[in-house]
Amino acid sequence: MNNIHPTAIIGPKVLLGDNNTIYPNTVIYGPTRIGDDNVIGPNVVIGTPGQDTRNPRYDSSECQIVIGNRNIIREFTAIQKPCYESLTILGNDIFLMQSVHIPHDAQISDKVVITPMCALAGITKILEGANLALGCTITQHSVIGHYSIVAMGAAVMKNVKPFSRFIPNRKISVNEYAIKKFGFQEYFDEIYNYVMNDISPKSNIIVDIINEFNEKHAKSGMPLY
Amino acid sequence: MNNIHPTAIIGPKVLLGDNNTIYPNTVIYGPTRIGDDNVIGPNVVIGTPGQDTRNPRYDSSECQIVIGNRNIIREFTAIQKPCYESLTILGNDIFLMQSVHIPHDAQISDKVVITPMCALAGITKILEGANLALGCTITQHSVIGHYSIVAMGAAVMKNVKPFSRFIPNRKISVNEYAIKKFGFQEYFDEIYNYVMNDISPKSNIIVDIINEFNEKHAKSGMPLY
Amino acid sequence: MNNIHPTAIIGPKVLLGDNNTIYPNTVIYGPTRIGDDNVIGPNVVIGTPGQDTRNPRYDSSECQIVIGNRNIIREFTAIQKPCYESLTILGNDIFLMQSVHIPHDAQISDKVVITPMCALAGITKILEGANLALGCTITQHSVIGHYSIVAMGAAVMKNVKPFSRFIPNRKISVNEYAIKKFGFQEYFDEIYNYVMNDISPKSNIIVDIINEFNEKHAKSGMPLY
Repeated sequence: MNNIHPTAIIGPKVLLGDNNTIYPNTVIYGPTRIGDDNVIGPNVVIGTPGQDTRNPRYDSSECQIVIGNRNIIREFTAIQKPCYESLTILGNDIFLMQSVHIPHDAQISDKVVITPMCALAGITKILEGANLALGCTITQHSVIGHYSIVAMGAAVMKNVKPFSRFIPNRKISVNEYAIKKFGFQEYFDEIYNYVMNDISPKSNIIVDIINEFNEKHAKSGMPLY
Repeated sequence: MNNIHPTAIIGPKVLLGDNNTIYPNTVIYGPTRIGDDNVIGPNVVIGTPGQDTRNPRYDSSECQIVIGNRNIIREFTAIQKPCYESLTILGNDIFLMQSVHIPHDAQISDKVVITPMCALAGITKILEGANLALGCTITQHSVIGHYSIVAMGAAVMKNVKPFSRFIPNRKISVNEYAIKKFGFQEYFDEIYNYVMNDISPKSNIIVDIINEFNEKHAKSGMPLY
Repeated sequence: MNNIHPTAIIGPKVLLGDNNTIYPNTVIYGPTRIGDDNVIGPNVVIGTPGQDTRNPRYDSSECQIVIGNRNIIREFTAIQKPCYESLTILGNDIFLMQSVHIPHDAQISDKVVITPMCALAGITKILEGANLALGCTITQHSVIGHYSIVAMGAAVMKNVKPFSRFIPNRKISVNEYAIKKFGFQEYFDEIYNYVMNDISPKSNIIVDIINEFNEKHAKSGMPLY
């Protein structure tokens, strides 16, 4: 059973799983599919059209959003419909804090944390376990690698490597906090060598992460920090 | 006929033209005059008092907002009443994306695009076709020239020339994207020389633009990038 | 008597003083204690859980917010419950503008001004009369000193001295505007020597301010600009 506040407006073609809590003044338009155990609101907007300057009034009636399970989506955050690709898609265990902008065609992977006032441009991909600190901005098509962190207030114009820290005006460094938090300590040396010296890792678990990043990085056509 | 969601709150002295769509949880206080074919909301606030630190509780009951036609004003954006001049005024074909702050006494001209998390200080003027990228901030009294662009995350402390690009820590450059988008290609050399070398243009259409900017620039008392 | 719009949602355990105005679509959850003469909303959220990544779903049912008197809290601003300390606390005569993020365990002192799109991280302390300009971000545990100002778009990673101006990439300077506004002109030389040369002031009123700051600064474990 879902717990939906009576002031929430849930449009047609919104499919809700089970055990979601939707707080007051939240608006959800479809077609949107939402899994289980999510906490949404108050005053959240999901399912408005993508903000595409080339065609601001495009027909978004069939453009779909998919949101997984156990996500927290906080007040004044919006998640918008795709314009170019088939989905705007969010995975599981994501934490979108106050006043976050999730744009058209974004992909937000599992365990991502996006803090208040962060704004992503269209078609960005934020990969598993990445963390965007307060008020940072991400340019179009960018790929933010797994378990990386973007510093407070940073304007990200290139892709960010997995396990790295992007701080404006500093060399890329290793995100030791995430390595510990997500249990990658035994791979520290491999990760360090990958982030700092571009040396390919050997352990499958790290290789798989880097390969997934490299594939999306190549497709994005963006440069790399 | 206007299409107004029943949860929208439209105060007295709000004059709506025709064919406007007002989405849920939007609040509009008057005196506010809105033209035709605008899309507003959900969860937009228009007509609250200007945020003036010198007199936060000034009487704004007669302070007026005017909004033109064919504008799109998206979720969590606010447009506030004037404190000093006679109007907060928006033209036509403007696109205000999520979580934009339009302050007291602002002038937003036709075809301006303001992207998520941008905040303008009071009495700013954003001139025709200008584009403010994600999360940028504009200081008081500033004039952002026609067809210019301000980069993502920039803090703008001076006026920005028409047709220019302002990117922090870089020399001003020419906004080629806007020249193409708005059909000024045949004037490219004149525009280039104006932006880069301060050489006055000769073609009337460009001269008129520069003159309008120069007049507002002079009145603003602000320096120029 | 309080003036509460019928669309505002005021939870149980919300204690309101007198003469507060609460505008539409505002949500206030308790336990929250609010004094007199406050203006809140429209579309404000107070009393949602702190955004703590270590325990995003912590039980906040007994976590309390206290808000004083004569504060103005504007549209799309949120004030969140504590996670670590006993209170999120706001004093008197504070002006929180559009889209401000007040986090768990924050302390906002009297006469503070926080402008649009500012985001504070958890456990920050903004001391009396400080002013945060558009879109700035404040890191965890920081202390922003009395009557200081943080520049537009700044990312604050250390504590900020009382009476100082923090502008990125510049030396700390004296906040002359606040000295005049708050009536400290007769202490200008002492303040100047404290801010610029770390010379301890002699007048009691300034000594008390510096002592209060120094105590919180020492507790914070943060470096100083």
